[in-house]
Amino acid sequence: MSLLVVGTVAFDAIETPFGKTDKILGGAATYIGMSASYFTNNINLVSVVGSDFPQENIDIITSHNINLDGMQIIEGQKTFFWAGKYHIDMNSRDTLATELNVLADFNPVVPESYKDCQFLMLGNLTPMVQQQVINQLPNRPKLIVMDTMNFWMDIALEDLLKTISMVDVLTINDEEARQLSGEYSLVKAAQKILTMGPKYLIIKKGEHGALLFDKDNVFFAPALPLEEVFDPTGAGDTFAGGFIGYLAKTNDISFENMKRAIIFGSAMASFTVEKFGTEKLHGLSKEEINNRIAEFVSLVQFDINLQ
Amino acid sequence: MSLLVVGTVAFDAIETPFGKTDKILGGAATYIGMSASYFTNNINLVSVVGSDFPQENIDIITSHNINLDGMQIIEGQKTFFWAGKYHIDMNSRDTLATELNVLADFNPVVPESYKDCQFLMLGNLTPMVQQQVINQLPNRPKLIVMDTMNFWMDIALEDLLKTISMVDVLTINDEEARQLSGEYSLVKAAQKILTMGPKYLIIKKGEHGALLFDKDNVFFAPALPLEEVFDPTGAGDTFAGGFIGYLAKTNDISFENMKRAIIFGSAMASFTVEKFGTEKLHGLSKEEINNRIAEFVSLVQFDINLQ
Repeated sequence: MSLLVVGTVAFDAIETPFGKTDKILGGAATYIGMSASYFTNNINLVSVVGSDFPQENIDIITSHNINLDGMQIIEGQKTFFWAGKYHIDMNSRDTLATELNVLADFNPVVPESYKDCQFLMLGNLTPMVQQQVINQLPNRPKLIVMDTMNFWMDIALEDLLKTISMVDVLTINDEEARQLSGEYSLVKAAQKILTMGPKYLIIKKGEHGALLFDKDNVFFAPALPLEEVFDPTGAGDTFAGGFIGYLAKTNDISFENMKRAIIFGSAMASFTVEKFGTEKLHGLSKEEINNRIAEFVSLVQFDINLQ
Repeated sequence: MSLLVVGTVAFDAIETPFGKTDKILGGAATYIGMSASYFTNNINLVSVVGSDFPQENIDIITSHNINLDGMQIIEGQKTFFWAGKYHIDMNSRDTLATELNVLADFNPVVPESYKDCQFLMLGNLTPMVQQQVINQLPNRPKLIVMDTMNFWMDIALEDLLKTISMVDVLTINDEEARQLSGEYSLVKAAQKILTMGPKYLIIKKGEHGALLFDKDNVFFAPALPLEEVFDPTGAGDTFAGGFIGYLAKTNDISFENMKRAIIFGSAMASFTVEKFGTEKLHGLSKEEINNRIAEFVSLVQFDINLQ
């Protein structure tokens, strides 16, 4: 099934306790697309970069069978740039720079050839931009997944709530779920958010795993305990890419299949954090992914016979 | 198999965002014993209280088929008392009072009738007191589980390391694992702690679940997402009680069975936090426990066929 990914393609400069990078390939759509590419080959991307975006980065993305017809290249302007520094616990970070550049006036245009998309993944972006993409599609996709962040809750709540009401699956982290719902308990937060439109909610808890809720069910996937988290950048987007990539591959949006999709998303994210940026996500083998899934199975499966 | 539980029996005064209590029944051994009593009937307790400890509390404990021959009652002295106040996130708390009272000079005496114990659970206590109990047993139990806390790492590290070297399973929380090992990564922390003596390490992460490590394996059990955590006091002890109670019942200390024991421990802890103190833990039915276990199964089980 065809998958449309909308989001940033960017430069990141990352500093962690283990080292730092110059401007490297980043952006939500990059991680989502590359992660999804391990499950489906029919991926179309809508994004925007500047004329400073090098051919070698384009080559990396297209080597994952990701169609870039919908990625605008704005002459004479610069690509979105983010710089951040992680603290020793790797769960908190300081933003050192955010240069919107081409993102400031981003007007997404969905090419004709993309418009039959069955699965739509809206990476974190201005809620109004996410909405514009949905509105350009002549037929509603089978599943729309949307990522967002607290920033839009602070400055564009009304737009955000409108966009949320149009999607099937919302992915946010635990603090964002609390902020959006006004509830501290994640169970109560989920119940409230599920009245805002989405049928499914994924609450990402970083190193503590992820929760999937629908009205009647809850599923928990742990994060794999790793010896070293080298760079968490892109972990959430990689997770989302594995999730929707697996759903697009299997074309099954039941709760049972979403559980599997979340395990695949978690497995993909566990690779991303092992190296800087997209480095580890580029060039994984099927065997590596299957071995990682087997680790998840062994991590959580148990066998109890109740008496 | 007979289970010996050593630990505090105490008064707690608890304040949470939902209310506060006067002095109520508390203490590590109380929670451990009551939780274990749902799995095994052969429980002996070693502890100490003052003459202010009321008969009704003794009746509650003995109603769980817990033998109190080894609980000293010190005439004219007062029972250990702890008062604490939880913050809104329920993960952090301030200690408002700690009155050691009878605990200050606690000399544990293991009655003759207790000495054939197969399973020994050392609740959090001065490491030297825990050691004295082990040394009073003529035959080494089949399994010794020990709980401890950061306080002893700060003021009695040498004694603590000696005691840790004598046990099979150590249970501590994530921050304590980091402090004890000097490693931030819990995987690295576990590897290091497993060289200190114990064959198994359980890292408790509160609302984020628990990890079980041995040299070659790791297992993760989530905490059940609850609508409301009413009072976390005793959750860790209840977990430990369910864990060792299940092991004593099944008399099987394989890694596979420890996984089940951790799920039972987690299920028991999920009850304790629903009401103040031991209230919920007193009078559970087998059906309630089995239903809770079924919730854990549904929470984490998934079915993936790798291709």
